[in-house]
Amino acid sequence: MHLRVVNPNTTAAMTATIEECARAVIGPGTRLDAATSATGPASIESHYDEALSVPGLLAEIARGEREGVDGYVIACFGDPGLDAARELASGPVVGIAEGAMHAAALVGRGFSVVTTLDRTKGRARELAERYGAPCRGVHACDIPVLDLDPGALDRIVALGREALARDESDVIVLGCAGMADLAAKASARLGVPVVDGVAAATLLVQSLVTLGLRTSKHSEYAPPPAKAYK
Amino acid sequence: MHLRVVNPNTTAAMTATIEECARAVIGPGTRLDAATSATGPASIESHYDEALSVPGLLAEIARGEREGVDGYVIACFGDPGLDAARELASGPVVGIAEGAMHAAALVGRGFSVVTTLDRTKGRARELAERYGAPCRGVHACDIPVLDLDPGALDRIVALGREALARDESDVIVLGCAGMADLAAKASARLGVPVVDGVAAATLLVQSLVTLGLRTSKHSEYAPPPAKAYK
Amino acid sequence: MHLRVVNPNTTAAMTATIEECARAVIGPGTRLDAATSATGPASIESHYDEALSVPGLLAEIARGEREGVDGYVIACFGDPGLDAARELASGPVVGIAEGAMHAAALVGRGFSVVTTLDRTKGRARELAERYGAPCRGVHACDIPVLDLDPGALDRIVALGREALARDESDVIVLGCAGMADLAAKASARLGVPVVDGVAAATLLVQSLVTLGLRTSKHSEYAPPPAKAYK
Amino acid sequence: MHLRVVNPNTTAAMTATIEECARAVIGPGTRLDAATSATGPASIESHYDEALSVPGLLAEIARGEREGVDGYVIACFGDPGLDAARELASGPVVGIAEGAMHAAALVGRGFSVVTTLDRTKGRARELAERYGAPCRGVHACDIPVLDLDPGALDRIVALGREALARDESDVIVLGCAGMADLAAKASARLGVPVVDGVAAATLLVQSLVTLGLRTSKHSEYAPPPAKAYK
Amino acid sequence: MHLRVVNPNTTAAMTATIEECARAVIGPGTRLDAATSATGPASIESHYDEALSVPGLLAEIARGEREGVDGYVIACFGDPGLDAARELASGPVVGIAEGAMHAAALVGRGFSVVTTLDRTKGRARELAERYGAPCRGVHACDIPVLDLDPGALDRIVALGREALARDESDVIVLGCAGMADLAAKASARLGVPVVDGVAAATLLVQSLVTLGLRTSKHSEYAPPPAKAYK
Amino acid sequence: MHLRVVNPNTTAAMTATIEECARAVIGPGTRLDAATSATGPASIESHYDEALSVPGLLAEIARGEREGVDGYVIACFGDPGLDAARELASGPVVGIAEGAMHAAALVGRGFSVVTTLDRTKGRARELAERYGAPCRGVHACDIPVLDLDPGALDRIVALGREALARDESDVIVLGCAGMADLAAKASARLGVPVVDGVAAATLLVQSLVTLGLRTSKHSEYAPPPAKAYK
Repeated sequence: MHLRVVNPNTTAAMTATIEECARAVIGPGTRLDAATSATGPASIESHYDEALSVPGLLAEIARGEREGVDGYVIACFGDPGLDAARELASGPVVGIAEGAMHAAALVGRGFSVVTTLDRTKGRARELAERYGAPCRGVHACDIPVLDLDPGALDRIVALGREALARDESDVIVLGCAGMADLAAKASARLGVPVVDGVAAATLLVQSLVTLGLRTSKHSEYAPPPAKAYK
Repeated sequence: MHLRVVNPNTTAAMTATIEECARAVIGPGTRLDAATSATGPASIESHYDEALSVPGLLAEIARGEREGVDGYVIACFGDPGLDAARELASGPVVGIAEGAMHAAALVGRGFSVVTTLDRTKGRARELAERYGAPCRGVHACDIPVLDLDPGALDRIVALGREALARDESDVIVLGCAGMADLAAKASARLGVPVVDGVAAATLLVQSLVTLGLRTSKHSEYAPPPAKAYK
Repeated sequence: MHLRVVNPNTTAAMTATIEECARAVIGPGTRLDAATSATGPASIESHYDEALSVPGLLAEIARGEREGVDGYVIACFGDPGLDAARELASGPVVGIAEGAMHAAALVGRGFSVVTTLDRTKGRARELAERYGAPCRGVHACDIPVLDLDPGALDRIVALGREALARDESDVIVLGCAGMADLAAKASARLGVPVVDGVAAATLLVQSLVTLGLRTSKHSEYAPPPAKAYK
Repeated sequence: MHLRVVNPNTTAAMTATIEECARAVIGPGTRLDAATSATGPASIESHYDEALSVPGLLAEIARGEREGVDGYVIACFGDPGLDAARELASGPVVGIAEGAMHAAALVGRGFSVVTTLDRTKGRARELAERYGAPCRGVHACDIPVLDLDPGALDRIVALGREALARDESDVIVLGCAGMADLAAKASARLGVPVVDGVAAATLLVQSLVTLGLRTSKHSEYAPPPAKAYK
Repeated sequence: MHLRVVNPNTTAAMTATIEECARAVIGPGTRLDAATSATGPASIESHYDEALSVPGLLAEIARGEREGVDGYVIACFGDPGLDAARELASGPVVGIAEGAMHAAALVGRGFSVVTTLDRTKGRARELAERYGAPCRGVHACDIPVLDLDPGALDRIVALGREALARDESDVIVLGCAGMADLAAKASARLGVPVVDGVAAATLLVQSLVTLGLRTSKHSEYAPPPAKAYK
Repeated sequence: MHLRVVNPNTTAAMTATIEECARAVIGPGTRLDAATSATGPASIESHYDEALSVPGLLAEIARGEREGVDGYVIACFGDPGLDAARELASGPVVGIAEGAMHAAALVGRGFSVVTTLDRTKGRARELAERYGAPCRGVHACDIPVLDLDPGALDRIVALGREALARDESDVIVLGCAGMADLAAKASARLGVPVVDGVAAATLLVQSLVTLGLRTSKHSEYAPPPAKAYK
């Protein structure tokens, strides 16, 4: 089985962290690689960034199809281009917000999201709504994506603790691929499950491929009609 | 007041029809022009098309901002790039699905959408959900966007009649910018309001500008943070 | 085009303010007048007031039909008698809560309502639900309708500021026709769009008439069956 | 305990049937009388009728308060004036749609409503939504209110049978006070519970009074502020 | 008419209080008795307790059927085994959360629940969702079920007062059968309706039996198919 | 990693099939065994059966905890006892309806469930609601659980084909553990993903354990308070 994690921003250092977190959880029979978008923003912190990240992401999916990749993870918490990627891919595609929210729903009664900038909260809420996920609150730590580092842990833990109390939640979801390596430490300090979407989405895709479940091509996700592009 | 209707596909002939429909309804003090995306698909009939249409659309919004445009209409029924456009624009931005659904909600109890291809129904439902609109059904006439012509009217009317009965709706919304010039004729034949989103969205934007209402820059729609793009 | 704004309370001074706010935004080809209910309460601050205001309001709609009026605004934030008025009118009818909430939804991600008395909050929430509007909170300034004056601005601005923070909203909707003349000033001080429903509903009705969209007479809003009234 | 059923239309013959159905179910310690609105339409079959029925209904509630009535039933399936009546009354007030829907929810998994005219279906759906009731469909027998007679039973039973199958429901709610005397016969023929709202609401009010539960005067349903009425 | 209240925990002293509260409200023609589960937990404070209480509860329902009981109340605020009991019983079955929430919805605009332990709040929210009830908040007084005594009143009243303000509710629902005897006193101190589910559910069942409404046996609640049990 | 699939009915032959389906998908490092409830019904086809299956199921979970099992699957499509099992288990617990619905949501836009008896449809809908899953219809093949055999495939495929068309769905979920071995064949014939919950839930649990995600013990799912049981 060959999986690919696509980082839709253009920062290769971030792709490296993401790949490491994904690789840490896959099974022995799974081959995994990570790709960085060739075009688009250095980080995704607005609807504008997200929109501009999608063509590069889709190019990676198209390349993956030519190379026989069996399943994909979209490694940005806004799940950019998810529907379009599903049209291109024959195997499953899972976004990391989607993966994190599905996993969180299975280990608790309701979760809070800790994300980066205040302005991204609306997108997280919208995705929770779309996925039918028991999201009880979204909170911003006000650290830009590319400034996330081990030092961010304290702020994330403090915000998570506050969120558990205020939202009456029992699970924390990390709202950025750049936080992937902080989940275990945050969980140890908070005493509740803390979900990193990169690892969660990777195992969901691996599970779907193992189950023989590919994206349904019955109607909406059928391959897009061929046409002229300028 | 200077308004701009942006056709996010790259077919200039379609832009011409759209512009005509928009121009037919504006007030005497309003200057309106229409723009065609310089890049992207010839028509938008999939999530993939929609994703690839957005960068060209956003370039038109950015150009509009430099030119002092007061408000924008996004003239594709999938409302592609709406959130990103709102971040870029200081004035209001309305999508034609949004405009049509708002108008339809004001003149009836529940509407049915008549759209082009079956695969686009999911997006229409998703937008109705987002806008809180009383959409009771979405129906596809199975005519590709670029094949819509006066001859499509019969099929649209037949489908609309069926929809009114099956959905217990009392208004029809036309689900494609390419149907804009058919609304009046369809309404005359069906005996119910038939809403074209191009005209509806244009008047909504004109109204918002007149009211002095611009996109809120308070949080989510603030200008996107500057950063490096590849 | 001939539009009429009906003030369903019996205070003519309030009708004058409402008319002025409506008149300020209409197009050059639009004739607008305002009517005051001949029967009912001096102001509307309860379900009881609202119920008693409706017969007078409907009498004005009926008169308007005889005079060939093309569209109506119901100028009370409870949108009293809206469904019944739609049965009587052949043109469109829009309530000011409806108009304000539709406009607010187009320029932000979520709005807060600032209304008069605490007891009217339930009605505002109910209307937001009905219209599918992204209302995030309703707040009362505790000033009775007929005591609203320029001096109320400070209280409204303070409450609005609090609401933006607490509700994580980005637009303010003024919840009373008596606040119509305060919108621009409140917006200037708050730095976000502040929506007055009188002006918003007036332009929505004007837009619908221009679009040729009249209330659907297909089923629920058909003229009421003739019968004996005591 | 003194209860009053108010028929908000002005047809005394209908009040007599309603009173009989209510009287048939009350306990030995309950005194029940029925009142007919002094003003308004002969039957209620539109939003317009409903609006015009409310002042007469409220006059009866006000009279009831002066006479020390302990609780009220509003005997029209549109539950006209319910919120306003709750402001006036110190005891509980229940509408017959409300009563029927609450009772139906307790004896099955989902119900279908069989109502009179097609145009009243929207109101029934709206009330089901408001009451959080598991309504799976609303169906019109196309018999005007004042033409309901024992001969309507066949049509109602046929429609009920169809509704149970199509809606996958297991209970039928009769959608008009004028059908009150047909419930037992319809149930015998359909083999499922058939709920008449007049009897159901009467027993709900009797139960609330017995429980010492009166309308909360804490905020929204406090007595309406005194003011001038024209 | 013969009604039975089943206490699904195994604490007979609690059954006695419950029986007294139920008996206090029934009509003169109603015979009421109470049963205590022969197996299961001494009190119900977790999903685990609830699950283990159900077989004993269902045995009481089965016994009731053999004895010709006409209707049942399940006297635990988690409404354990409600669907299964409806399959067994030919008459109506109402849970006390269900009964309390239905009653509360009829006398106010929105209620708050005051329950025992924090961990039971999720179940209360879930039931409110199921019943479509206007629940605005659930609050725990942190007193275990078997420690509830007259001394709990102060804590419940304080929590109720806080809930009314924070939730903007106007009715309090007591979230445990063990609080049944505190409703009147709490209401007197809080000045709003306070609903005890034991009394409320008892009168709802009595009403349903009087109305001739039995659990629909049309599909989901038909008697369970006979089969081998180990 | 040690996983256990618990069949909550008492039919060991069914456990064998379930175990085989689960074993077919696990990773090389996973040890999996299956347990059959020692008490309860031979098959689960009603709320009554479900209720009686839970104590036996919970006994298996309790035994698993003593044996150090890392995660559990509840192998009945009603997901009986899920919340209680989560209280007992320190590792994750996933029901097969939950697992199937999560997996189905990831590979299509909306799914239809094909279940056994008509009377079980309500439970399936209720679970879809709880899990926020995009379920568009539930259909019964009218074959009792213990009569499911390879011959059921034709009926399931026919019903699935009908469901895809009627519900406008693009994925089929099999609504019974007894159908687990039919998924691949049904998918081959229907041309859409067909999800078996046994395999899906098994891989979800395996994934959660690999991710280090255990059931949150923060509040609702903390170990149940110790107490006396009769």
